[in-house]
Amino acid sequence: MWFHPVATGEAAVTVEAHNKPQDLTLWSTWFDPFSHRPWIALEEKQVPYQFRNTNPFLQEPSFLGVSPRGLVPALTVADGRPVNDSIIICEYIEDAFPSAPSLFPQDPYERSVVRTWVDRVNKGFVPCFFRLMQAQPTTEPEAHEKALQELYDELSAVCANWKGPFFLGEKFSLVDIAIGPWAVRDFIVERYRGFERQKVKGWTEWAEALASRPSIAKTTSEKYVEFNQTFLRNESHSRVAIAARSGRSIL
Amino acid sequence: MWFHPVATGEAAVTVEAHNKPQDLTLWSTWFDPFSHRPWIALEEKQVPYQFRNTNPFLQEPSFLGVSPRGLVPALTVADGRPVNDSIIICEYIEDAFPSAPSLFPQDPYERSVVRTWVDRVNKGFVPCFFRLMQAQPTTEPEAHEKALQELYDELSAVCANWKGPFFLGEKFSLVDIAIGPWAVRDFIVERYRGFERQKVKGWTEWAEALASRPSIAKTTSEKYVEFNQTFLRNESHSRVAIAARSGRSIL
Repeated sequence: MWFHPVATGEAAVTVEAHNKPQDLTLWSTWFDPFSHRPWIALEEKQVPYQFRNTNPFLQEPSFLGVSPRGLVPALTVADGRPVNDSIIICEYIEDAFPSAPSLFPQDPYERSVVRTWVDRVNKGFVPCFFRLMQAQPTTEPEAHEKALQELYDELSAVCANWKGPFFLGEKFSLVDIAIGPWAVRDFIVERYRGFERQKVKGWTEWAEALASRPSIAKTTSEKYVEFNQTFLRNESHSRVAIAARSGRSIL
Repeated sequence: MWFHPVATGEAAVTVEAHNKPQDLTLWSTWFDPFSHRPWIALEEKQVPYQFRNTNPFLQEPSFLGVSPRGLVPALTVADGRPVNDSIIICEYIEDAFPSAPSLFPQDPYERSVVRTWVDRVNKGFVPCFFRLMQAQPTTEPEAHEKALQELYDELSAVCANWKGPFFLGEKFSLVDIAIGPWAVRDFIVERYRGFERQKVKGWTEWAEALASRPSIAKTTSEKYVEFNQTFLRNESHSRVAIAARSGRSIL
């Protein structure tokens, strides 16, 4: 296998603690940042769940039964029905378990602010991050420089609205969950793509607050770089890689 | 001006009935399908609002103050703060005015189903519709045929989950609002792009139910074709046109 098969570090401990059947099952891939989001949400809400490590590249029938397009994450509920898409799963967790802590503020306007920035992270920051990973600094320096600048621009747009320590201030919300997986993965673009945290005002402090949030620290592995080598060589054939190259949404 | 400046038909009557200042102001363009969505939501919920017809091409300072990227629709609340993005505005309207009729079912799982299909309409059907409008049947017949087939595929995927008369059955929901504006605009691709409703099982019945829903009928204009000529010539420089050509999300 060309990537480490299971979670490592603190995430491995959390996986082990969630290996028994429960009403909720999270079909997740330890290295996948989208899978990371609902995992953080489940840990925030302290909802019982089973963690089912899934290799989406195998496209096993049991997995395709809960995710027809073969994408992680999926969440199955008590009767086996699935919810797909990382943010829609988080919204489901909030709706199904409305007790505190809420992933949203109570005020309707502030809730719309959360949805606005989650959407911007999804449409702006995330594809920029993947395009930067795919850009080859030595063979296509101009494309690399453009991708790096686009990432700075997008992350700066989000951080300009960050209050600290979390996006809304003291309140941890779905915006933090949406971007949190990249707070523990941006070292990859620091190491291989010339990204510098300090060039984005606020990001260093926000990323550190995210990385030390227990729900994120407990779900973070040690071996992300090992997996991401295929992405860094721009040889990944995953749907997210293809979507990042084409610019289209993942369908 | 190269497009009719104001709403016509039943929509003109509704505009006239909402010309007085209210806490909520909908900054909307009569011909824009995205603007149509929150307008339907406001009519469904019977919430007082002022309709402010906006020409986004002028990029007037008053408008850029409520929509920094110059996109319609925008909704401003009592203190003038804006909400942007058509679906996020609908979610805001639901959160701020939770009394019946709700735009969502009560069951958390069913709510996730609504979000799943709204997302699919946004990422699949909508860009396919714009690409089909831009495809030139005479000069690029293969691209046109591909765009037509992609639209059939995407619309079929949604309609396969349609229960009738509305997406969830008797209950009208945000899925109906998400696709509703195209139920009164698909005649354009029927007339100019060879689209046939009957090729998509369920769409004829669903589109007719949508078009006769009062919230949609009362917000529908007569002159959509006139505006869409620029799109049909693939000469539009609007953000949605550029995004449809590039495949990227509108940012």
